[in-house]
Amino acid sequence: MVEVEGVIEAYNPEGVRKFFRLRPSKPLALYVIGSTKTSTIPKISVAGATPQATMFTPALDVEYLVYGRTVSMKGIPVTPEGIPTPAVLTRAVLNTSNLPFFAVDSGSYLEPKIPKITLPSKTVGGRIDIEEALPEGTSERLFNEAKAIGRTLLRCCDVVAIGESIPGGTTTALGIMVSLGYRAWDLVSSAGPQNPLDLKRRVVTKGLERCKDLPTKDPFKANDCLGDPVHITMAGIVAGALENDLKVILAGGTQMGAVLAILKRLNFELKDKLIIGTTRWIIEDPTSDIVRIVKMIDKEVPIAAFDYNFSDSPYEGLRYYEKGFVKEGVGAGGTALLALLLGRTSRNDIIKAVYNEYGNLIRGEGPEG
Amino acid sequence: MVEVEGVIEAYNPEGVRKFFRLRPSKPLALYVIGSTKTSTIPKISVAGATPQATMFTPALDVEYLVYGRTVSMKGIPVTPEGIPTPAVLTRAVLNTSNLPFFAVDSGSYLEPKIPKITLPSKTVGGRIDIEEALPEGTSERLFNEAKAIGRTLLRCCDVVAIGESIPGGTTTALGIMVSLGYRAWDLVSSAGPQNPLDLKRRVVTKGLERCKDLPTKDPFKANDCLGDPVHITMAGIVAGALENDLKVILAGGTQMGAVLAILKRLNFELKDKLIIGTTRWIIEDPTSDIVRIVKMIDKEVPIAAFDYNFSDSPYEGLRYYEKGFVKEGVGAGGTALLALLLGRTSRNDIIKAVYNEYGNLIRGEGPEG
Repeated sequence: MVEVEGVIEAYNPEGVRKFFRLRPSKPLALYVIGSTKTSTIPKISVAGATPQATMFTPALDVEYLVYGRTVSMKGIPVTPEGIPTPAVLTRAVLNTSNLPFFAVDSGSYLEPKIPKITLPSKTVGGRIDIEEALPEGTSERLFNEAKAIGRTLLRCCDVVAIGESIPGGTTTALGIMVSLGYRAWDLVSSAGPQNPLDLKRRVVTKGLERCKDLPTKDPFKANDCLGDPVHITMAGIVAGALENDLKVILAGGTQMGAVLAILKRLNFELKDKLIIGTTRWIIEDPTSDIVRIVKMIDKEVPIAAFDYNFSDSPYEGLRYYEKGFVKEGVGAGGTALLALLLGRTSRNDIIKAVYNEYGNLIRGEGPEG
Repeated sequence: MVEVEGVIEAYNPEGVRKFFRLRPSKPLALYVIGSTKTSTIPKISVAGATPQATMFTPALDVEYLVYGRTVSMKGIPVTPEGIPTPAVLTRAVLNTSNLPFFAVDSGSYLEPKIPKITLPSKTVGGRIDIEEALPEGTSERLFNEAKAIGRTLLRCCDVVAIGESIPGGTTTALGIMVSLGYRAWDLVSSAGPQNPLDLKRRVVTKGLERCKDLPTKDPFKANDCLGDPVHITMAGIVAGALENDLKVILAGGTQMGAVLAILKRLNFELKDKLIIGTTRWIIEDPTSDIVRIVKMIDKEVPIAAFDYNFSDSPYEGLRYYEKGFVKEGVGAGGTALLALLLGRTSRNDIIKAVYNEYGNLIRGEGPEG
């Protein structure tokens, strides 16, 4: 028996219900973008039509959020099969619920042609099997810069959803968790029905051999070595939000375990303050286990999932989501949960809005042509 | 007889009162920073210890807003006499009233080491007496990029104050107004008691000779030729705010005439939607005339001023403000008016907060050392 229509109480249902009984009125959604060259390892990521194209995906995703079309290049990000980016879902939710949002650039390979928050230490992440993820010290700087958003912008708000776009992100998230001592092997998800778990394990194992003194309790060291720019930035925003007494929705799938691991190692108390917000497809993914990840890192953190279902979609591109493609990204699940939390829309209206958004897109009727 | 303690109804008092009867609850303050090489013309700007130092002032101003100290270089911006930047006033107001704020980089010579909104077309402005202000097309792009903040972030809010930091800004503002056909000669203010009006006239006149087909009704053309990155960006944010039904405080002195002129030429209707918010020092400046500027451009726009008075300050640096130094900048006046509009503080508490802020600063007790 769920309390809010459309909300799946995937883990710690009492915590989920408590969260959904809050009555926040001033929301903000932030989408952290960044690249890691790890995504160019063949077959590791399908968040782009080719391994090289994955480097452009984060910028194109947030351009699409703002304009309903991409600006820097033609066409929205798709998987090699042509299945559209979850930015389509996120944009539909944002607009149907009039949610304020902004992109945060922590190290996008391509600079999106939109107004966005830029962190001074933004850096494209390295290929973690063969090189350091970030130059020494970068992770701590990114964390602190992101945290500073708490003392400026986040004063606007009482709840924030924090999403991500980083192809290769489940692999670097695995790198972060493992180097912080969490055995998350075989637990992370992927954007395809075939999860290349063996490849991810090989990449992270090779990276571990490259790095000294791992595992460590120091999340900055772990992230410089085996992480990426995005997850540490998300953790920094959480830190800034908690300082301002905001409630937080970590809007993503199994990767959110990396954010939790960083926060845990920095001794943040998350109980009653933060939930993970994802999609049904992540919860039901037979190749990964978000619940086990969260239990391992911080068993107090609830997991909620938005009950997307595109089985009856008139569009094939969306019906593929029901076959294990894409699953999550650009905060698609958590943004929908934020809209429900605010009482601004219903499950059915969100799904209708996604169909409408995608329909306009494939008919070339984006708001700007 | 003023309606709100601390608010001087400088022009269109009925309009000011109407604005202060609004009951907004979701504020945001944005500070647009940018550089123009015009500020390096000797004696034209005192917003920096030397003509070259003025190029660093915008970045240092917003670093100070966030951290209470500068990060990129040692020491806050000062005039050649050592009088401190009005960022000190603004920071005191922001913190005492817990106002959300963010910097917008439209073309700062030095990149501030803070999280900030970056516009893709950010460009440092040229020296308008001898070269174009911005490469052709830049002004229109900056305007549209800034306007896009309206469809993302500004959904958070019902009122926005927009301030600026651009040394040389009264000269480029004069350039914008004159090239749009407004005879603002001798009406713009300055940050010193001696206003170099003849020099400003010579610089703008020389620039006019350089440009073809001026005056024009096209604000993008005018701004590419004789403007700067900041005022056109402020106009773009106003456009985005009006699209979202926000109320607007244009937080600045005589330069705000340039923003009005741009909006007027783009046919924006500003009645009951926007006020100019400045300081008593601008209103009382014998060397400039903000009221005449506004009457000339859009006589419906009210002007309110915050009644700062540092006569009884224990600090000499602030007492200099009463002798005609600084006067305005970094939205010092409009931010205080925003705090009063929200009912979050009182005139006396603001002045006390400024003394406290400055005291900490000169004792080296900024929050981060």
